[in-house]
Parts: sequence; structure tokens; C-alpha cells
Amino acid sequence: MHDFPWHTKRVAVVGLGLMGGSLAMALKPHVDTLYAVDIDPRTRALARERGIAHVVSGNPEEVLPHADIIILATPVQSIVEMVHALPHWVRHPVQVLDVGSTKQAVCQALAQLPPRFDPIGGHPIAGKEVSGLTHADPGLFRGAPFVFTPLPRTTARARRMAESLAHLLGARPVWLEDPAAHDRYLAYTSHVAYLLSLAMTLATPDEASPFIGPGFRSVARLAGSSPRMMRDILATNQAAVLEALDHVLAEMEHLRALLAEATPDAWEAVFREGQARWRALGQE
Amino acid sequence: MHDFPWHTKRVAVVGLGLMGGSLAMALKPHVDTLYAVDIDPRTRALARERGIAHVVSGNPEEVLPHADIIILATPVQSIVEMVHALPHWVRHPVQVLDVGSTKQAVCQALAQLPPRFDPIGGHPIAGKEVSGLTHADPGLFRGAPFVFTPLPRTTARARRMAESLAHLLGARPVWLEDPAAHDRYLAYTSHVAYLLSLAMTLATPDEASPFIGPGFRSVARLAGSSPRMMRDILATNQAAVLEALDHVLAEMEHLRALLAEATPDAWEAVFREGQARWRALGQE
Repeated sequence: MHDFPWHTKRVAVVGLGLMGGSLAMALKPHVDTLYAVDIDPRTRALARERGIAHVVSGNPEEVLPHADIIILATPVQSIVEMVHALPHWVRHPVQVLDVGSTKQAVCQALAQLPPRFDPIGGHPIAGKEVSGLTHADPGLFRGAPFVFTPLPRTTARARRMAESLAHLLGARPVWLEDPAAHDRYLAYTSHVAYLLSLAMTLATPDEASPFIGPGFRSVARLAGSSPRMMRDILATNQAAVLEALDHVLAEMEHLRALLAEATPDAWEAVFREGQARWRALGQE
Repeated sequence: MHDFPWHTKRVAVVGLGLMGGSLAMALKPHVDTLYAVDIDPRTRALARERGIAHVVSGNPEEVLPHADIIILATPVQSIVEMVHALPHWVRHPVQVLDVGSTKQAVCQALAQLPPRFDPIGGHPIAGKEVSGLTHADPGLFRGAPFVFTPLPRTTARARRMAESLAHLLGARPVWLEDPAAHDRYLAYTSHVAYLLSLAMTLATPDEASPFIGPGFRSVARLAGSSPRMMRDILATNQAAVLEALDHVLAEMEHLRALLAEATPDAWEAVFREGQARWRALGQE
């Protein structure tokens, strides 16, 4: 914060879902003016009621011309569309950060912006199984990795803004030049996790529900995620998700064969290996 | 508690892992004497240091003859072995409850006990991804379902004891006469969830670890479970686990085909269905 003059900045957050709403709430006390844009009239009404922003609007053309920094926080495919529309809406120099869950498609779009834009990709790896402004929380990003994928054209100033934003949110900045690598990693650490959760939830019969405990709850949680958000994420990361999914499916087929054929001693050895990998991934 | 005279009872808990340790801690203030048995000298030392029980012993033959109620809280296959040994250790009338994670194998063993034993099967659906007495917590069972699987021979007195124990722990008693049904449901709500978690953890490359957020953490959590405990659970529920696993694998293959072939609109419809099932299972 001390390294970036947030208090002089007019910041526009576009998309007041869980992410955008949480960002707006966290940023508002630190900036000169916070503009918030959402297409949904009920979301705007709630945003006004809760004082999420200084100005709440349904029209990007109305508020984006006043912003020094634009943060795009809608589902990924809308972000891409908005990046294409930005040059028509905004005629002045401006910094642009997106917080979409996949980075390759967005960074390709950001790269095509005219020179007056100073763009950088971002992805705070935080969230909840529930979505929408109702569940927004300025503390959502605390302790979370905030990945930044700068473009070759991204300025030192935009990098400082990004780094400072992560600190302001209590997040941990993680820099990665390659948006495709981001999407490959996230296929494992997020997108396939969602698909596993979904498959288990779809397969579980109603009669089992009195026997649900913390284990099921923990794995099933992601099945509650916004279908629209997940659709955009998977649509912009299809190849990497299929590859990661095939890898996990191969592991599952291996476990299935083991359970059907090997002895419990052999199972236990694989369970130990899994426990060791869980620890190696920093999960204990 | 008011309906069962815990304060007059001498209770022995066998196995001071996460479950047994948590039970001992929760019960000790309410009973006349709490005996705790564990084969591991370090666990016994920790139990003494923490005052988990009035008497801590490594030898079931030494303490079980003094108990009015015996609670078996070791991994499932050890519970079965212990049930077989009980008639040699205990010559007086006694109530026996086990808290093993599968119920069919244990209830078969309990059914064979001589008439001086009054046995009932139980399974508190609570836990953590970490195991051992170090992580024991008397609040572990609060709000959790505590499933009881009485045998045809189980007395009204043992049922009262069980019901009252659940209330004492802050758990919600769930009665189920059929231990095979318990194991079939738990295959979905617990055992397959573990296997999914394990497969994902095993498939995830080290380089992905800086990109881990709450979603992965939540699904991967179960991979930390005790390998020995999981081995016993799966060994005593192999057929039901394979059936549930095949059901989930079929859902995953279906999702895989959908992602590879259908359009994002078709994906979104399935994601909505999964979200609706997640809600129907009481998860929102």
C-alpha cells in the first residue's frame, strides 16, 4: 500500500459476484473512488444497500471513462468479451487487471489492447462453494495465492500495482510469465477437483444423505460452484482439463484394479504413498 | 445424560486414536472411572500426560474386567479381532459398543458374543484428515450423525446407553437396523470420497503446489487419512466400495465425454444438475 498511491486512485470493479464484490469491499476504504458495475439490477440494488462502492452502475460506458484502474471480475468468457469492448468504452490511459480463473484466453485478448491500456492478468486462488455478492467477504483473499501473469508489454507500474493489491488484500503474490502454464496447473488444482466433486455428488443416492459427514462434505463442496463460472473456466481450458482428467482417471482405474485384485497390504502401501504426496503438496 | 446413569459407570475405551481419544476426553468428566487401553507406549505416555483417562493401560485383560461399558475404537479389523478375544478377557456382564467405520463385519462378530455381553454397533460420522491422540478433541462429535446398528439381541438398555452417549457428545443419533445398508451408504459418503481424493493427490504434479487454493485443499484433505484405518475400512467393505466406485467412474467417463464432445451449453446443464443434487443432499 505504501508503495502504491491507492488513496489517489479511481478504481472500477466490473462484475459484483463473489470475487468482484469481495474485491470492491476490500478496496473501497483505500481508494479515492470505487466504481462498481454489474448487469444485474438486483445485484446493483444489493451493492447500493450495502455501500459496496461509491458509485454503482449498470453501464460500463458510464463509469469506466472515470477510472485509473479497471478490474474485470466477471466469468472468464465475459472478461474476454469485455476486453474486446474496452477500446470503445475508454479513450484515456488506464491500467487493466482481470481476475479470471483461467489466464490464456484472457491474456491473448489483453495483448491486443491499444497502447493506452496497461494490462496485466491476475487470478486470486480463493473462493467459496457459494457465489454471488450475498457471500462476498473482504477477507476472502487473506493468505491466498494471488497469481499474476504479466504480458511482455505490462509496465513496471502495473506490476507494482498488482503486487501492492495482493498485499492490500492479505494475499501472497505469485508471478508467472506463462499463462498456459497457469492453466495447466489449475487444471489439476482446481478444474479437475471440481469435476471429481461433481461426479461424486451426481452418483450419490438420496438415501445416503443421513450418513454424510465431514469427508463427503469436504469433497462435495465444489459441486456447489456457479455452473456459469465453471462452464467458462472449462471452455477456456478444455485441452489441459482433459489431459489432467485423464491422468486422474488413470490413477482411479489403477486404484480400482488394486482394490479388486491386490491384497489389503498392497492397498495400504499406495494409501501411504498418497498420504506422503498430500504432505509433499504442503497440505498437512 | 439424565436418562442414563453415566456417573455410576466404569467405561473402558480401547484404542486411543483420534476417535477413541476424543471419546475418552468427552466421557471422562461424566463417568465414575474411565479406563483407556492402547498398545502403543508413546500414546499411553501422552494419554497419561494429558490426563485423558483415570487409568491408562497397555493390557486389555488388566482393565476390561473392571468395566461396565466397553467401547472399541481401534481400526475395524482390530475391532473384529478384539470382539473375538473379549470372552477370554471378560467374565462378567458388560455392554459393548464399537465405533468402527464399517458395520457389517463388526456386527457379525458382535452377534457371536456369549450372552453375558450386550453388544451394539456404532459409527460416529466425524473425523479429521489427521489421526492419532495428538489431534483428539472432545468436541469432535458435535453436530455429527452417530449411527447405531443394533443387533436383534441388543437390549433396550444398550439402546438407551447409545442414544444417551450420542446426546452427551452433542451428536445426532441415527438408527439403522441393517449394517450392510450402512456400509453401502458409507461407500458413497466416505470410502469413495477417500479414493477420489487419493487419485487426485497422486496425479497432481509438485510444480502445481504454489497454485493450490481452497478447492484443491478441500478435495485433497481425505488423502491425509490414516492408511491403516482406510485399509481396514476398505477391506471390510470391498464389494460395496467397488460398486460405488464404478458408479462414480461411470459419471466421470460421462463428464469426460461431455467435455470432449458436447458444447459448453450442454456442460452447464450438467453442472446445474450437480449443483441441484448437492443442494438435495443437504449441502448448501
